[in-house]
Amino acid sequence: MSRFWSPIVHQLAPYTPGEQPQDRSYVKLNTNENPYPPSPRVSEALKTYEMDRLRLYPDPVSGGLVRAIATHFETRPERVFVGNGSDEVLAHCFKAFFGHQLPLLFPDITYSFYPVYCGLFGVDFRTIPLRDDLSIAISDYTVANGGIIFPNPNAPTSRLLTLDAIEQLCQWHADSVIVVDEAYIDFGGQSAIPLTGRYDNLLVIQTFSKSRCLAGLRIGYAIGHPDLIDGLNRVKDSFNSYPLDALAQVAGIAAIEDQAYFENCCRMITDSRDSLSADLTGLGFKVLPSAANFVFAHHPDAHASALYQALKQSGVLVRYFGKPRIDNYLRITIGTPDECRALTERLRTILARI
Amino acid sequence: MSRFWSPIVHQLAPYTPGEQPQDRSYVKLNTNENPYPPSPRVSEALKTYEMDRLRLYPDPVSGGLVRAIATHFETRPERVFVGNGSDEVLAHCFKAFFGHQLPLLFPDITYSFYPVYCGLFGVDFRTIPLRDDLSIAISDYTVANGGIIFPNPNAPTSRLLTLDAIEQLCQWHADSVIVVDEAYIDFGGQSAIPLTGRYDNLLVIQTFSKSRCLAGLRIGYAIGHPDLIDGLNRVKDSFNSYPLDALAQVAGIAAIEDQAYFENCCRMITDSRDSLSADLTGLGFKVLPSAANFVFAHHPDAHASALYQALKQSGVLVRYFGKPRIDNYLRITIGTPDECRALTERLRTILARI
Repeated sequence: MSRFWSPIVHQLAPYTPGEQPQDRSYVKLNTNENPYPPSPRVSEALKTYEMDRLRLYPDPVSGGLVRAIATHFETRPERVFVGNGSDEVLAHCFKAFFGHQLPLLFPDITYSFYPVYCGLFGVDFRTIPLRDDLSIAISDYTVANGGIIFPNPNAPTSRLLTLDAIEQLCQWHADSVIVVDEAYIDFGGQSAIPLTGRYDNLLVIQTFSKSRCLAGLRIGYAIGHPDLIDGLNRVKDSFNSYPLDALAQVAGIAAIEDQAYFENCCRMITDSRDSLSADLTGLGFKVLPSAANFVFAHHPDAHASALYQALKQSGVLVRYFGKPRIDNYLRITIGTPDECRALTERLRTILARI
Repeated sequence: MSRFWSPIVHQLAPYTPGEQPQDRSYVKLNTNENPYPPSPRVSEALKTYEMDRLRLYPDPVSGGLVRAIATHFETRPERVFVGNGSDEVLAHCFKAFFGHQLPLLFPDITYSFYPVYCGLFGVDFRTIPLRDDLSIAISDYTVANGGIIFPNPNAPTSRLLTLDAIEQLCQWHADSVIVVDEAYIDFGGQSAIPLTGRYDNLLVIQTFSKSRCLAGLRIGYAIGHPDLIDGLNRVKDSFNSYPLDALAQVAGIAAIEDQAYFENCCRMITDSRDSLSADLTGLGFKVLPSAANFVFAHHPDAHASALYQALKQSGVLVRYFGKPRIDNYLRITIGTPDECRALTERLRTILARI
């Protein structure tokens, strides 16, 4: 606490990202990174970049990257916004669209950054409980609101909502912005991006951090009606003119242009997810149906916090949240087949000790 | 305008960065970039970076870079905050320290992003007119306030304030945060960083974009009392956990460790500034005394807007603001000796036509 802080800063409850330990080498299955390196085209683009150009400011509107994303999704650049990771894009959304009289709605169990943004920007919100099976039921979202946001598939539950359900929400709440945070959509879901052409209140956010293997370069984007993109640009240009550095821009272009690599990478991960889910089930875990690059699981005979600690001691990091309703769950990122095997072997040893 | 925007977004007056034209090759003296490439060590660090690691999130606290900056300034890491360019660091300062009852004070002619941040975060402010010679007089800053911010040297005027004056402000306003934005300090000023050890209300912000030749990588930092750094971290962790990508972090470390390159680079620029100032004076310009990598000048016989246009047509970009009190001034970035010569030659031709 400090007398120098603005009043709001005293009340902030900042987000805690997953551990990025620098001390030893872990089998790292805790922050939903991709186990595979980025496309070789990314490395090529970075190694051939004329580094002397780094003396210049980057393109403030990331024009080349915006065009590459628009081309990829067969849409127009006016419908694309890019930011310094999807967290920055999300933050700008909270500022741009959710400062209305009525409360923002989001699930009680979801990406834990949402209430943090609300605290930062003074956005009133109301959480809607997930059903007992940890699914989102859109019939719970009929109340008047100043916006709705959720990840699809949801995090950390990994459960997917159908496009029909999302379309229904857009129709019910034509005066609210519906933000669908698709960080994990490429691992088994169907993107709502095509719906943005029909619903001017729908904004879809994606990231290069998961399916494009580029968490280290911080690239996120939003796709929607030009009025929404314009709102985001107004906030961005009132905050930081140059959010993406020059290298992130060229790497992003290279990544999104390599469709074959992307598809293969996603397929390897979904294959591993299926195997890992089966192996965990074989060990007695209950695994929620996942459309993401992670699974959300609990074990009837061993508490998640104990498993998390035992795994960490054995050199495997997974994510444990310790929050109401999910304090007996582990979120486990899908690694390479070897990493998944290391996990299940150590779990087998740990469970045998109980 | 859109019904979806939060009320505040309708009122935003976003910042307009200097042109980054992609259409033709200009002699680019409009955005205060360094005319020299970054240190060869930067290029080396980037080319040898193991690109496969980009699949992982970067260190959220940029620990290596924070330590390198702390070492460089002979201070402790707890006194250093880094962000995605000094614009992001500044934005966080406005949120963290300037939301008080009393208005923030800054000069009427200064970095034009300051009132934009105030609009974004709802910060009340009062501008203090520069003196007729476009200098800051600290005796004009005696009123009670909720903070004070200014660049030193000031932008776009290039005029420097002494450390004694800054220290006086810190003493007068022990309950306000004084932010000194030292983007240009390495080109002829004395940094206030040593004062941060004595005044817990002083925060100094610097950037890698100017004297470190790395505008393309977006690295800014703040140095001050740990309570101030803690306030910035609370805002940062409520906005974006990973503001600096992995490549920016390694490049930043390489840049700040190459002191010889840095010093040589700054000396070449200040030498060019002295020559250019003399040449412009020879052409009839009045040039303000500059401690920056740009000069601020006007010509008694030719209006700045006409000169700006004529220069642009001849392939030289400088910055023209067209704002009250400075609408007859040009801000000219110091380029290489060749670029400076190109500028003065074209100005000579343009002026001969009048």
